[in-house]
Formats: sequence, structure tokens, C-alpha cells
Amino acid sequence: MQQLSVGMVGLGTVGAGVARILTRHADRVARRAGRPIELKWAVVRDVKKRRDADFEGVRIVDDARRVIDDPEVGVVVEVIGGVDAARRIVLDALAAGKQVVTANKALLAEHGPEIFAAARKADRAVAFEASVAGGIPIVGAIGVGLAANQVQSLAAILNGTCNYILTQMTQGGVAYAEALADAQALGFAEADPTLDVDGTDTAHKLAILAQVAFGADVRTADIPREGIDRLEIADLNYARELGYTIKLLAHARLAEGGLELRVGPSLVRNDRPLAQVHGSYNAVRVEGDAVGETLFCGRGAGMMPTASAVVADLIDVATGRAAITARALDFWPAAAAPIAVLPASRTRRRNYLRFLIADRPGVIAAIAHALGDKGISIASVIQHEPTQEDENGEPGPVPLVIMTHLAVEQDLRDAVREIDRLDVVRAPSVCLGVEE
Amino acid sequence: MQQLSVGMVGLGTVGAGVARILTRHADRVARRAGRPIELKWAVVRDVKKRRDADFEGVRIVDDARRVIDDPEVGVVVEVIGGVDAARRIVLDALAAGKQVVTANKALLAEHGPEIFAAARKADRAVAFEASVAGGIPIVGAIGVGLAANQVQSLAAILNGTCNYILTQMTQGGVAYAEALADAQALGFAEADPTLDVDGTDTAHKLAILAQVAFGADVRTADIPREGIDRLEIADLNYARELGYTIKLLAHARLAEGGLELRVGPSLVRNDRPLAQVHGSYNAVRVEGDAVGETLFCGRGAGMMPTASAVVADLIDVATGRAAITARALDFWPAAAAPIAVLPASRTRRRNYLRFLIADRPGVIAAIAHALGDKGISIASVIQHEPTQEDENGEPGPVPLVIMTHLAVEQDLRDAVREIDRLDVVRAPSVCLGVEE
Repeated sequence: MQQLSVGMVGLGTVGAGVARILTRHADRVARRAGRPIELKWAVVRDVKKRRDADFEGVRIVDDARRVIDDPEVGVVVEVIGGVDAARRIVLDALAAGKQVVTANKALLAEHGPEIFAAARKADRAVAFEASVAGGIPIVGAIGVGLAANQVQSLAAILNGTCNYILTQMTQGGVAYAEALADAQALGFAEADPTLDVDGTDTAHKLAILAQVAFGADVRTADIPREGIDRLEIADLNYARELGYTIKLLAHARLAEGGLELRVGPSLVRNDRPLAQVHGSYNAVRVEGDAVGETLFCGRGAGMMPTASAVVADLIDVATGRAAITARALDFWPAAAAPIAVLPASRTRRRNYLRFLIADRPGVIAAIAHALGDKGISIASVIQHEPTQEDENGEPGPVPLVIMTHLAVEQDLRDAVREIDRLDVVRAPSVCLGVEE
Repeated sequence: MQQLSVGMVGLGTVGAGVARILTRHADRVARRAGRPIELKWAVVRDVKKRRDADFEGVRIVDDARRVIDDPEVGVVVEVIGGVDAARRIVLDALAAGKQVVTANKALLAEHGPEIFAAARKADRAVAFEASVAGGIPIVGAIGVGLAANQVQSLAAILNGTCNYILTQMTQGGVAYAEALADAQALGFAEADPTLDVDGTDTAHKLAILAQVAFGADVRTADIPREGIDRLEIADLNYARELGYTIKLLAHARLAEGGLELRVGPSLVRNDRPLAQVHGSYNAVRVEGDAVGETLFCGRGAGMMPTASAVVADLIDVATGRAAITARALDFWPAAAAPIAVLPASRTRRRNYLRFLIADRPGVIAAIAHALGDKGISIASVIQHEPTQEDENGEPGPVPLVIMTHLAVEQDLRDAVREIDRLDVVRAPSVCLGVEE
């Protein structure tokens, strides 16, 4: 078979990693792909910037058109990130008959239907293993490895920055702001970390996984999400006392009436493998109807882990597997059997609740009553003796922590609103999910 | 595309699971396979045995020849287990031009080269996802998902029976014999559990993984292995005190000079995900040169998890992906670039050592001296005050536990032989590996 020529658009960290593997391990790649894979073009913003030896022989240009118009190019790798320019390049590449490999989660989360419609029209594959969970081959695992299953649920740590920060907070006992600054200093967090810490990045990836695992066509904006930016160290400590660790989880579950989707800080029992996923690692727990529970962990970002996924996709394109998989799995299909996404209010979960209450008789009864009224049953309670006094020398307000059994979200919200109105409650309550 | 007709040989637990998925989820399977997959034949020992509704329309016979001679059959599923009959069926099926799906680890571990030579000759695929780690799609993960990587190391829990027993011993504090009896009563262990608990089953699977990940052609007998059948609860307790959990691990690592391979009970630090793999679950940690560390967990055996892998292979055969993968990965190739397997004596590992020593001055010094003489350095030590007295009212022998840094196996053996000769050492020492 003749060689596969690659045009890569974007030469940031991931692009440099891809070039490194294709250049330094050309033999290995050719062996597994059944033919050589050659990096022919790289499209960059600044063609004058010096490149290292991995780019010898690569034509470096600043116009993606050059690549797309080259009939020798069989596949376009999109690693520029962002949405608008990336969308244009992917659509143009498909229209020109190229296969496409992309690492762009925002692009697929926002424009999946348009891009896959274009791919079907052109009879080309769009491979996107690198767009979710970096080096973990999760798209292949769900779509191919677990193809005999109907996925029942997913729970995933999909943002390495957040997991790094949470690990620092949990293990080092440092507050959010300090852990974030530390992550920035070490390069684990961007200068502007908003999209990571507010849960948007995780929601992008969940939107893609919801398509891969459930065929659900969801936009990021439709996924209820909460970030880690308002997490208090107190809650990590109570979680530990209860035998749990707090992780930023993407959650999806086939429930009666539709699909539950959400992103938020959640308590995970310490003896569950997800709780032991530390630092910048990602992990995806997949429950299938035949296989039961499976877990896939690895680095979710970074130069070489993401390049590992991009090159795996290139090998899949070169062998012809990608074309078969694209046809068989038909992501974001034209005629989707629409799977209903449950409104957040109708989803069910266990909850961790923290209230700041006056140390007075009857307070716990009042709170328990408000929960009971909504049919929410209490699994466990922590209240320690008060250690602070208020300005009058009276015992200060004390935290009360309650873990509930499964509760419908709307009932919980109603109960908490009720509780927050009690005059013995001294601050808005904290409410986090608990992953089963 | 026309339907794919399946002839299944063997109708035990796994075969019944495969039939269940193919029958009850025929639509799902057809959608993902691009065409219907029909179970046409089942070959059993006793055709008169009653079968459930999943076998309506399936021709049940006791002669595999009927299946192999049927030109309509496109793929033969071998799930009878054992080695000799299975080998015959697989070779005959390939010679008749059928694709093959097998769940048979012993067969591949013993006859991989012969079977894949026959497959190449017939230009047919032998798919074997179900042969290692049951429902975990690990062959696909390493061969396809991580195809951009050179695997550097593997550490895996591959026997659910052993992991169940070890979990019972660790969490319940029960001795080996009791945990085994319990596992047998619950159906997690066979009446004759020898091949599970002595490490043979794990070694079969490691032999297959060594081929998939490193291209190493190894027979089970060549893998140094130790089982869990002589593990004492004392060592699980000391491990816990040191912050470790004991797991039966398959280990492979590309070292200088060749490939390290071994199977044995090993200490894993509690904060590593492998330590949190409980009960009958399996897990494979794969370290790749690009992706870094990844971990794949799930059920390693049982009716539906194993059937999940067999049906995934059938879907791969139906789509044509299996044929491509077989050609690209070329398992047990004719002209293997032989990778040297290091003799056990030259491998390196950290060690957990337990000695039973007289409570007398100079004993620890003598032991430390014997280790130091061989260049083995001590990482940590536990010795508690003696609690027993011997028949003369003197303090009884006390256990001394030492964790070493990395040591060459031969040096360690020499040092331990030296130590066991000391007259102050009261019992043969216990030596377990420590997984990094």
C-alpha cells in the first residue's frame, strides 16, 4: 500500500507531539498501519518560528488551503483548537475528500451534527479519540471494545487541571485559590483557567461521550454543570471523615424516562477506584449491560498522551479501520432515534448536604423534618460539638453534615430552600452529589 | 451486506451468554455490525439437554464437523475450553476458510504460533479479546487504542478467583483456606482451583499479553510463577501496616537486556488504583512510551462479561475490522524479531521480606549485613516487641519485616539463602515482590 500523507493544522503542544511520534517512531507506526504515515504539511500561524528536528522535510505554511488542495494528502489532522477556524478547516477538508482526525472537544460538542453530516456526505471518517480523556482510548473502548453492550451509566474524571487541584486540596489541605496558583505555576492550569474550573471543559467531553455511549445529541449548554471554584476545604474534610473523596465528575445514566447528565463536584467512596485517581489523571467508569462495571484511566491531556490518541487515529485511518468504524457507529446520525435527556429537576442522586446551624435544641429535628416532608431519607449525619463562641459568648454556629439516600433533584432543591429559610440556619447550605 | 452465520462450539456458561446477547439484542448487534449476526449452530456434548429460549432456531449438534463443513458459516466461535479438542476445531475451522473467535487462553498460550501460522495461511482472523481479562477490551486497547506506543510495562490482576480470595483475606481477616472455601461456596472458585490459585491461569494470560504488547513468544511454563496458596495472613497484615495491599500480579517490563516476566503475589501501594481493585475484578495497568500510565479494569470472567468480549469480536469480524487488525498486528508472526526474555535471576524488583528471628542482640545487624553484602539496600523495617515466650520462658521468635529498594533477583536469592542459614533465623523467610 502507498504511504498516507498527513496535513496537520496547528503546531502547538499536541501537534509537536504528533510530529515527534511520526518522525522518531516512523517504523513502528508504519508496521502497525500497514504503510508509512508521512507528515507532509504543517499549517502554523508563524512560519518563521524555529522548529526542531522532528520537522525536517515537513512543509510548514500558514495557509490551510495549501494542504486541503494537495491531492496527495489523505488525512487532515486538526489540532488548532478553538471552534470557528477549526470548524471551517474540518468542513473544507471533508469537502475535499480528506479523512479527518481531530482532538477538538469544543468543536464536536458544539458542531457534532454538522460535522458528521458533512462526513457522511463525503463518505469520509472523522476520528476523534483524542478529544475525550486524552490518551485513554475511551471512544474505541465504548464504540468497539464494548460494542456488545448497551451502556447503562458513565462516571468520569475528564479534566486533569481540576483533578490536580482537588488532589492538592485533599492531600495537602490547601485552599482552592492556593491549589490553583500552584497548578498554574506547574503548568497544569492555564493563565485563564475558567473553562476548566467551572466545568465547561468537562461538559464538552460529556457531550461527546453522551453521543458515543447513548447516541444522545446534546449541546454543552444543556448539561447542568457546577465547577470546583467554590469548593471549600471544609467539605473535602467532611467527605474524608465519611470515607469519601471529592472529584469533579461527569455523570450520565440511563434512567426511567431518559438520560441523566450532569457535571459537578461529587463524593466518591474511597474504596472505589475512581477515588484513587490522583493528580492530572483522567478516568472513565463505564457500566454496560453485559460487561458490568469497567474503568479506564490515564492521562487526559498533555503533549504525548494526546498525541498517542491522534496517532492511533491516524493508524486507524491508514489501515481502513476508521472508515469501517465511522460507517458502523454512525455518530451524530442524520435520523437519530432521539433519546430524551431528563431535565435536571427530575434526575435522582444521593446528596451530601452541609448546613451551618445555631447550636440550639430542635434544629436537627427541623432540618430532618424538612427533608422527610419531601420523602428524602437520611443515610448518615455528622455534627461535632461547637468549638467557637459568638460575640455574646454563646456557642457559635456549627456545621451539620447530612448524607441522603437517593432523592429526586427537585425534591431536594425544595427541601433545601425550605431549610435555608429557617432562622436557625446561618448560611446558604452546601449541596454536592454522591456517586454510587 | 448479508448476514454473518455463526457456528459456536461449546455451550457452557460463556456460550450461553453469547447466545443470549445475539438473540435478545439482535437489533443492537446488527446495527453495530452493519449486518445481522445469526447463531446458526451450537455444538454440544449432549444434544438432548434442555436449552432455554435463546436457542430457538439454533441447530444443536454434537459434531463440530457439521458446522465446519457448512459453507454458510462465516465464523466459528470456540468456547469449549481445554486445549487439544479446541486446537483441532480452530485449525479445522481456519482450514475450511472460517474466521475464528476464541476465548481460550490456554490454547493461545500453548499453541499461539501454530494457530496464527494456520490463520495466515488461510488469510483468516483469529480474534481473542475474551481470552484475557474477560470483559476488559485489553487486546484492542493495546493493539489498536495504544498502537502509537511502545508498551514499556504491564502489571495486571488477571484471575478473579485469586483476587476474590485475597480481598476476603485482606478485608475479612480470614485465612487462605477459609477464603477459598467461601469462594467455592459462592461459585467464584472451581471445585479444583489449582490452576487459578497456583498462578498458572494468570501465566497463560500473561503469555498472551506478552505477545500482544511486546511481540514476545513465550510459553506459560517459561514464566516464573508463584500462587497465592501459601500466602499467610500475617503478610497481608504487615503489608497493610506498610500502606500496601497484596495482589496476585502478572508483571512484564522492558528492561535492559530483555523482557521481565513473572507472576506472583505482590505488594501494591494503597494509593495506587491497582490496590483498589477488589473482589472478582481484573485490571491491567499499561505503561506506554507516549501515553504514560493507563489502567483498564473490569470483570475478568463470568457469563456476560466474557460474552461481551466474544460478541465484540463477532462484530469486529462482521464489519471487517477483525481482518484488518489481524493483518496489521500480525500476532505470533512467522518471522518474529525475537525479543529476549530475561532469566528470572537477572530481573529486578523491590522486595518485601519477612524473617522469623530470635529476639537477641545483633540479629538485625546480621541480616542487614547479609543484604548489604549483596548491594541490596533497605527501604523500611518493621519489628514489634515480642509478645510470646518460648518453652523456657525466654522471649519467643519475632517477625522482622524488611522492604528493600530495587534488587537483582539473583542477589536477593543469595542474600536470603545466606540469612536463612543464620542460626538466629527460626523459619524459612518469606519473600514477595513489590510493584512500583
